[in-house]
Amino acid sequence: MSQPPNKPAVVLLSGGLDSATTLAIAHAQGFQIHALSFDYGQRHAREIHCAAALAKHYKVARHETLKIDLRAFGGSALTSNLAVPKDQLAAPNPEKKESIPITYVPARNTVFLSFALALAEVTNSFDIFIGVNAIDYSGYPDCRPAFIQAFQFLANLATKAGVESEAAGQSAPKFQIHAPLIQMTKAQIIQIGLELNVPYQLTHSCYDPTEDGLSCAHCDSCLLRLAGFKEAGTADPIPYAN
Amino acid sequence: MSQPPNKPAVVLLSGGLDSATTLAIAHAQGFQIHALSFDYGQRHAREIHCAAALAKHYKVARHETLKIDLRAFGGSALTSNLAVPKDQLAAPNPEKKESIPITYVPARNTVFLSFALALAEVTNSFDIFIGVNAIDYSGYPDCRPAFIQAFQFLANLATKAGVESEAAGQSAPKFQIHAPLIQMTKAQIIQIGLELNVPYQLTHSCYDPTEDGLSCAHCDSCLLRLAGFKEAGTADPIPYAN
Repeated sequence: MSQPPNKPAVVLLSGGLDSATTLAIAHAQGFQIHALSFDYGQRHAREIHCAAALAKHYKVARHETLKIDLRAFGGSALTSNLAVPKDQLAAPNPEKKESIPITYVPARNTVFLSFALALAEVTNSFDIFIGVNAIDYSGYPDCRPAFIQAFQFLANLATKAGVESEAAGQSAPKFQIHAPLIQMTKAQIIQIGLELNVPYQLTHSCYDPTEDGLSCAHCDSCLLRLAGFKEAGTADPIPYAN
Repeated sequence: MSQPPNKPAVVLLSGGLDSATTLAIAHAQGFQIHALSFDYGQRHAREIHCAAALAKHYKVARHETLKIDLRAFGGSALTSNLAVPKDQLAAPNPEKKESIPITYVPARNTVFLSFALALAEVTNSFDIFIGVNAIDYSGYPDCRPAFIQAFQFLANLATKAGVESEAAGQSAPKFQIHAPLIQMTKAQIIQIGLELNVPYQLTHSCYDPTEDGLSCAHCDSCLLRLAGFKEAGTADPIPYAN
């Protein structure tokens, strides 16, 4: 799946385990990477530092961190004062399949992909990578394959690049939204990441870290991550509060 | 087309003639309005002041102005140092139908609608109004009916509200993107606006105003606006530089 040298791509990079693995996959495929992160008022601002460290590690062509204020709207435990649930792994429980976690941020991936599309246009990229996966899929509507497909369809209608590509005919490039992790379990993601030597010590997943940046080991995100490393048969290299 | 009292809606409000008319239409239909504006590094920041004045005039329930930095990406005469074209009305010329103006901002309406969707979710709105129109349509890909339809499709997949609505069955509300001006000429928009008493003196359209905020009368946007008022048989109430 190697690309022509320097074929540009935009990679959404939160600094979490999934986006780090996605970045590694795009890197392994030979893309020239334009990484895009967001400072969106999330409680776990440590992610932003991890994103910068990962961008540096992979020597990306460009790394933009956009400040956007999703907090102004409220509506999520990740951007407001709502309590982050602890020690209850809601997402992968089939009986709870229709309950959407309180950590859901309204329209987050739609907003993130929209900015990725804007950056793709100005960098002549037709490939956008996003690290949504099957675990998230159980809980968050904007991690479903149908959502990714709908955004890809939109992208080709929404843009100058898409219109020009349409006018140029079948052989012209079309926007493609790559979600390489979408059908993987957390353990599978970690296994692939380990094969690609992803520096997981530079990633952050906790929704509710201590002031020192230590992960709580009790929120949904920590529970999923710890279970994933356990299943993958290796230790998580990041420190936990307890 | 009157709505149940206090049915909430999100209205994208740039402060221009089209969004002011769209706001008036939503207001006339009885919606409780949550207006959303953006400070996105556009050169014509006067728009933002007009948006605030219009929100006040229509006594909206809430007016948010989000600061987002599309300038970081470049790629448009509206957000960079590229020259704004003067005295050449590119858009409605059928021979130039495929040339997209330099004033196109990459993925702008996708980004704006994404935030509108986020605000819709947290205000329990299923109705989003955007003032795209047939004139813009000639030039900007993200003003086409197919784009609006694709975004509406995406909105119902992307959100907690959309998923819950789907689970609740046919009778449940679905997100609807209203683009009431989409098939209108500028003159038709102005005629409808005048019938609704839109305070056009509080609107701004110029892409390249003077430092005093006077409109240039020569950019695409001024030419379209002036021709629209002329065709509607009335004078434009805003001052021009010459």
